[in-house]
Amino acid sequence: MIDGALLIGGEARQAPNRFTAVNPASGEALTPDFSSAGVDAVAEACALAEAAFPAYAATDPEARAAFLEAIADNILAIGDDLIVRAMAESGLPRARLEGERGRTVGQLKLFAGVVRQGDFLDATIDPAQPDRAPLPRPDLRRVNVAVGPVAVFGASNFPLAFSVAGGDTASALAAGCPVVVKGHPAHPGTGELVARAIQQAVSNAGLPAGVFSYLPGETNELGGALVRDPRIQAVGFTGSRGGGLALVKIAAERDEPIPVYAEMSSINPVVLFPAALAARAEALGREFVASLTMGAGQFCTNPGLVLAVDSPDLDTFVASAAAALTDSQPATMLSPGIHASFEQGVEALASHDAVQTVARGKVGDGVNQAVGAIFETSAQAFLADRTLSHEVFGSSSVVVRCRDLAEVAQVFAGLEGQLTATLQFDATDEGHAAKLVPVIARRVGRILANGWPTGVEVAPAMVHGGPFPATSDGRTTSVGTLAIARFLRPVCFQNLAPALLPAALRDDNGWGIARRLDGKREASPR
Amino acid sequence: MIDGALLIGGEARQAPNRFTAVNPASGEALTPDFSSAGVDAVAEACALAEAAFPAYAATDPEARAAFLEAIADNILAIGDDLIVRAMAESGLPRARLEGERGRTVGQLKLFAGVVRQGDFLDATIDPAQPDRAPLPRPDLRRVNVAVGPVAVFGASNFPLAFSVAGGDTASALAAGCPVVVKGHPAHPGTGELVARAIQQAVSNAGLPAGVFSYLPGETNELGGALVRDPRIQAVGFTGSRGGGLALVKIAAERDEPIPVYAEMSSINPVVLFPAALAARAEALGREFVASLTMGAGQFCTNPGLVLAVDSPDLDTFVASAAAALTDSQPATMLSPGIHASFEQGVEALASHDAVQTVARGKVGDGVNQAVGAIFETSAQAFLADRTLSHEVFGSSSVVVRCRDLAEVAQVFAGLEGQLTATLQFDATDEGHAAKLVPVIARRVGRILANGWPTGVEVAPAMVHGGPFPATSDGRTTSVGTLAIARFLRPVCFQNLAPALLPAALRDDNGWGIARRLDGKREASPR
Repeated sequence: MIDGALLIGGEARQAPNRFTAVNPASGEALTPDFSSAGVDAVAEACALAEAAFPAYAATDPEARAAFLEAIADNILAIGDDLIVRAMAESGLPRARLEGERGRTVGQLKLFAGVVRQGDFLDATIDPAQPDRAPLPRPDLRRVNVAVGPVAVFGASNFPLAFSVAGGDTASALAAGCPVVVKGHPAHPGTGELVARAIQQAVSNAGLPAGVFSYLPGETNELGGALVRDPRIQAVGFTGSRGGGLALVKIAAERDEPIPVYAEMSSINPVVLFPAALAARAEALGREFVASLTMGAGQFCTNPGLVLAVDSPDLDTFVASAAAALTDSQPATMLSPGIHASFEQGVEALASHDAVQTVARGKVGDGVNQAVGAIFETSAQAFLADRTLSHEVFGSSSVVVRCRDLAEVAQVFAGLEGQLTATLQFDATDEGHAAKLVPVIARRVGRILANGWPTGVEVAPAMVHGGPFPATSDGRTTSVGTLAIARFLRPVCFQNLAPALLPAALRDDNGWGIARRLDGKREASPR
Repeated sequence: MIDGALLIGGEARQAPNRFTAVNPASGEALTPDFSSAGVDAVAEACALAEAAFPAYAATDPEARAAFLEAIADNILAIGDDLIVRAMAESGLPRARLEGERGRTVGQLKLFAGVVRQGDFLDATIDPAQPDRAPLPRPDLRRVNVAVGPVAVFGASNFPLAFSVAGGDTASALAAGCPVVVKGHPAHPGTGELVARAIQQAVSNAGLPAGVFSYLPGETNELGGALVRDPRIQAVGFTGSRGGGLALVKIAAERDEPIPVYAEMSSINPVVLFPAALAARAEALGREFVASLTMGAGQFCTNPGLVLAVDSPDLDTFVASAAAALTDSQPATMLSPGIHASFEQGVEALASHDAVQTVARGKVGDGVNQAVGAIFETSAQAFLADRTLSHEVFGSSSVVVRCRDLAEVAQVFAGLEGQLTATLQFDATDEGHAAKLVPVIARRVGRILANGWPTGVEVAPAMVHGGPFPATSDGRTTSVGTLAIARFLRPVCFQNLAPALLPAALRDDNGWGIARRLDGKREASPR
């Protein structure tokens, strides 16, 4: 059911201010219209989240894991209505959204496993040494605890996997934190369907209703009020650099500043090494365009920059990419606003004196369609104008021709922080690549070889993060099991009576988790 | 040798601007005078640190551990000159400084063990699944890498253990980060002796000279320039709330914001439960004063607040504490500035309408001496005036009389973040204490039972941290092995050729460290 309500704890309530979603493929408004949450709703949702926190944070692993799995089941139970609505609101095709639903559900189940395993608690016990001289050592035990209520800002480009029940929500709930979602105005119907699935799971599990609230809206005031609310203890955000930095600023200016995990901006450089280019320039050109145009280029990890040494092989790559792009179909973008920004970014590159347009994709007759764009420039021109390294969200990329590999390294070292860097190399390139890897590692969260950056595996080793401005906090990831760490902090218990210790730290280890004893960690039990 | 030089990488250089240290016990200036580092020295030290970073971050565990141990050995080799100088500059007694030296050396050796063990790398391998449908899984490997050059601001109250070679420096070096220390102007001779010991260890180990620099000085410009330098990637600080927040602000305003780990302000509440008071009010009063006056009360974890239900037993506690404090000797404080702040804080409490002075310590005839102070007030008065909860650095504490345990909880819930909370309880108090523990855990980094907060064990389970304003980043600790996590961030390597992988992630596991394979962690090898 979609009726445009705010979901505040266990309740559904209409608000007087309304907004509508637009079908980007047609430009037409979708029904119904939606409540736009005001600051009163924020205060109410945060109060409920705070009230729910002690009981929710104290849930045992099995109860919390089962709750996450129930959310996943409830999302699947929505059935095709969810896919159809998400298609209408996002312009994304069915297969992509079905895959994204699988990822969303899989992510919730992955975190259920993380909760049951218990490694994320980092339970650490230093037994007392009563006879130590000159002073006895007390009994010290440390465990990670949930930070408190978390605000989540859904992203437009993954209306399922990075939105209401996406990675931020899943990892915050797994950590033991109630979540207040600020719903993205581009897909409010999709958001409501998923939010109701979570609300139902909260109710069925007998958890306090404030464990989850959903506040759709389109005003900056809504987001600002949520981050300002003193009960919110951390923020997860995926979106634009401007939006992320605004939230970071608000959070820093609170009486009690809180961390903001904003995933913001990345052009995901791809380095083509000489031997790889010599061996497979044509294929690389085609693969590049496939990655560039996937999902209308609306991935955080879209390859927006290609670095290579100028050579005839690079010409072959460029020609192959140009041919592939010229043949590529236009694709509906997520919203009129995103499409307008894309057009503006492409126009700025096309009209830049030091930039040549290599190719454009096919123009269609629909509205809000991305027409792919590949540009090229020299390393010197790129280094001379920082705006050339700014992200153009969508299927736009710049090929930078470098004099030699030293210049490739120079360009790389001058880049801002990135989510990913990709190396295309063959065996004889390895010596060159080895020199570049340490330079690259300073600037990115993930280095990948002989593949393409689009496609982010949800796995223990994944890092979807990186130095500023890729994210506002390069110590973390927003994809993969490590994402749970964003919503935890350590607390030490010294000489506490056994009955007063958290279960994870009691001698009986009733949860059967791996712990660190006297500095040595046990193997994971499962 | 102490000659007042700046130590910039491998060099020792005099700067034209000079300052002198004061012996707080006499108020007299000490010789020699010291270089006050300027912004040019900052730029030079940071450039050297950046140049040293790649090689230092790439050191293998044995080399890095041996380097940390060599620093410890060199500090011990300074001999009694270090203790004598630290006594003159800090007013702290010999036994305390000898103990602190042991702690400093032990901390360096502990981190050598952490480096050799390798758990801090959190090496994680998700093997490829080439046959997975619908898409194969790539080979994904994640490891923690050093963030880059780190700025360390030494504290005045631990001229060895929280200063030039203190916990921040030890953990940053252990993480693989070059360190630039801003030397505290209250103990520049002590600082120089230790800095030369580190400089010598860098040289003996054949490491790039920029791994360590030491910049003494007394200007805010120096600290600001260091945090602003684009090569600095993280900051460790222990000191005042004002000083810490100034650095946090500077770091947030950089083009590339960086984390600041500032340990700032805490009043370390102690809760006395009824049965404990009934059983041992007199002893508790004496122990409280011993903790309060230790080191002139100049501990981050000094017990500045006592909460208890009003009762005749509480009267007994207060009378016992008053008697002990009245008999207590005055103690030289670390510097004239700290002494003046203490006097001002005590005077504000003494003249507060809602606060009664319970007792003062003995007045001495020396300069800069702390005369202990215990005050009392009601919970209602305490809740009505937030200034009563502000830290008075030194041996000053406020006893708050509450109507009942619910009011104790109410006062606690209204407190700002704290490093510690202490519970004094007996068996029959456990039910009451159990209810308070979750409330307390929201506000503190460490909860301790039936002890006193002064005394911070350097151990794996320790948390010397806590929610704002105890620290600027409650996700971490500045004492104990977990402190190394502040200077690390994760990087993922996808499908990288074996030769290009960091050693910690190679199949042969040449370092013999515990890793996480397909989500399951191995036991620590040592």
